[in-house]
Amino acid sequence: MARILTGIQASGKPHLGNILGAILPAVQLSQDPKNESFLFIADLHSMTTVKDADALKENTLAVAAAWLACGFDTEKNYFYRQSRLAGYHTELMWYLNCLTPFPMLANAHSFKDKSDKLSDVNAGLFTYPVLQAADIVLYQANFVPVGKDQKQHLEMSKDIAAAFNRTYGEAFVLPEPKIDENVMTIPGIDGQKMSKSYGNYIDIFLPEKQLYKVIKKIVTDTTPLEEPKDPDTCNVFALYKLMASEAQVAEMRQNYEGGNYGYGHAKKALLDLILEKFAKERELYNYYMENTQELEAKLKAGEAKAELIAKATMQKVRELLGFID
Amino acid sequence: MARILTGIQASGKPHLGNILGAILPAVQLSQDPKNESFLFIADLHSMTTVKDADALKENTLAVAAAWLACGFDTEKNYFYRQSRLAGYHTELMWYLNCLTPFPMLANAHSFKDKSDKLSDVNAGLFTYPVLQAADIVLYQANFVPVGKDQKQHLEMSKDIAAAFNRTYGEAFVLPEPKIDENVMTIPGIDGQKMSKSYGNYIDIFLPEKQLYKVIKKIVTDTTPLEEPKDPDTCNVFALYKLMASEAQVAEMRQNYEGGNYGYGHAKKALLDLILEKFAKERELYNYYMENTQELEAKLKAGEAKAELIAKATMQKVRELLGFID
Repeated sequence: MARILTGIQASGKPHLGNILGAILPAVQLSQDPKNESFLFIADLHSMTTVKDADALKENTLAVAAAWLACGFDTEKNYFYRQSRLAGYHTELMWYLNCLTPFPMLANAHSFKDKSDKLSDVNAGLFTYPVLQAADIVLYQANFVPVGKDQKQHLEMSKDIAAAFNRTYGEAFVLPEPKIDENVMTIPGIDGQKMSKSYGNYIDIFLPEKQLYKVIKKIVTDTTPLEEPKDPDTCNVFALYKLMASEAQVAEMRQNYEGGNYGYGHAKKALLDLILEKFAKERELYNYYMENTQELEAKLKAGEAKAELIAKATMQKVRELLGFID
Repeated sequence: MARILTGIQASGKPHLGNILGAILPAVQLSQDPKNESFLFIADLHSMTTVKDADALKENTLAVAAAWLACGFDTEKNYFYRQSRLAGYHTELMWYLNCLTPFPMLANAHSFKDKSDKLSDVNAGLFTYPVLQAADIVLYQANFVPVGKDQKQHLEMSKDIAAAFNRTYGEAFVLPEPKIDENVMTIPGIDGQKMSKSYGNYIDIFLPEKQLYKVIKKIVTDTTPLEEPKDPDTCNVFALYKLMASEAQVAEMRQNYEGGNYGYGHAKKALLDLILEKFAKERELYNYYMENTQELEAKLKAGEAKAELIAKATMQKVRELLGFID
């Protein structure tokens, strides 16, 4: 049994790019009977940048609803908000702080990138790799799936955990990064990488009319309706092909190349595909957002389950530190 | 009712300098019916420098025994180990971390003093002023008695607490430093300031023979027994006068100036004075160190009492952060 841990930023309603690029692959990984997935909403980390408590709460619920809607099984796995187990995470963070050399943090890419505007950096942002290490080893995770940009942080987590084991005795499994070399890049409506910050994203949970309005904004060229079109340079086709079956893709390619098929037709086909493919997810997402008590009940159950693991680790840690009478 | 908070480093058995300079004045302050004293053993802070769990545990007990022996009333006041309420202290620290600008910490004297050897600085040492802020505001302390060297840290605590109140709503009393301008300096056996690190201290809790051995090492000049001596340049007299009654001081002064009174006589008088003046403290200290379960029971009772305050503050904090469902 391998423990796989993923923290999710509570930065708002996940969009199509998040869903195809991160959520669905993670859900698939979590379904493997050989894996136990620890999925948590990193709302303590979000506090380094988001200072609006209401926004943070709303974002947290939207993120949780999206993961549940996309089929994350909270019975088989672990699903929790970091903030609800804050005492465990931050206590462990303190112990690890005392074993983390200042220069290690000063060399973190995340800090160096901001070192020309130090007044904007808070102590949370500076030390967040240590909280990240605590997040991971608290649950004795074996693997942490990360992009290449997060490799350095994972190495730090491993070094810090090893320092604790060396100094006080064996308390932690040493985590390994699980780097996915071929991460899918999902294009946004302007052809750039889909991203909240670029404002070019598709929110698949919108009501149909609003969703169609966004899809209609996908940037295309001005080839007239009658003329044949090149699917391989078209943003609509690029998105369609990420979700459609082979037969559907072949059909749309034929339509593009045959002429008398406009971008409006393709956009309508993309809308229909999203509505069909994510019918269950859309329904579930809306259900949870309308029944947030139920969503919170699921999170609370997950937190109670995760707490058992966190408690056991901290019992061991406190014993080694001599903090148990 | 004013809340006065003091953190004590768990750096080992307190010596005469600690007792006269810090413990007895704090005990006196705590006896004022208008005050409630929060006295805690800062064993989380000690972790920034002490990595030996057994040593830390032993030091903690010795410090606790000394304070109890010196008459700190744990029923009227609050007495606890920071480590046993670590979840509250560190969770609050994280929230405050996210409101503490990096440059504020980089400008702290405690960090600047070490900036030429950054590899020796760990993240705990760098961020400890934030933990200190959490230690204070968690208990809504009004006053923190500090030396002048700690004034900057107290200003940081106040600024950080104010930032929280401003950002999320009123959660904290803003603490004020209570700076004692005329701190007593206690000379060690070599005439320098008595300090553990100089190895020139007197441990009043030693068995009589060992205590006498230390007192005999007090540095004096070589004036022969018969000749008159100057009490005002003598280390033995300097220590004696800190504890003796006016009549005793006048008598010893006469002895010095009269001749036929040797330093050996003065040292024996100092021993007798310590044994008499700290008879109860010596007995109690040894009792607690031989009955550590009783000592721990007192600490645990103090921790349960302190936890009620910490819990109430954190309830308020979490409400403001939206972390309560």
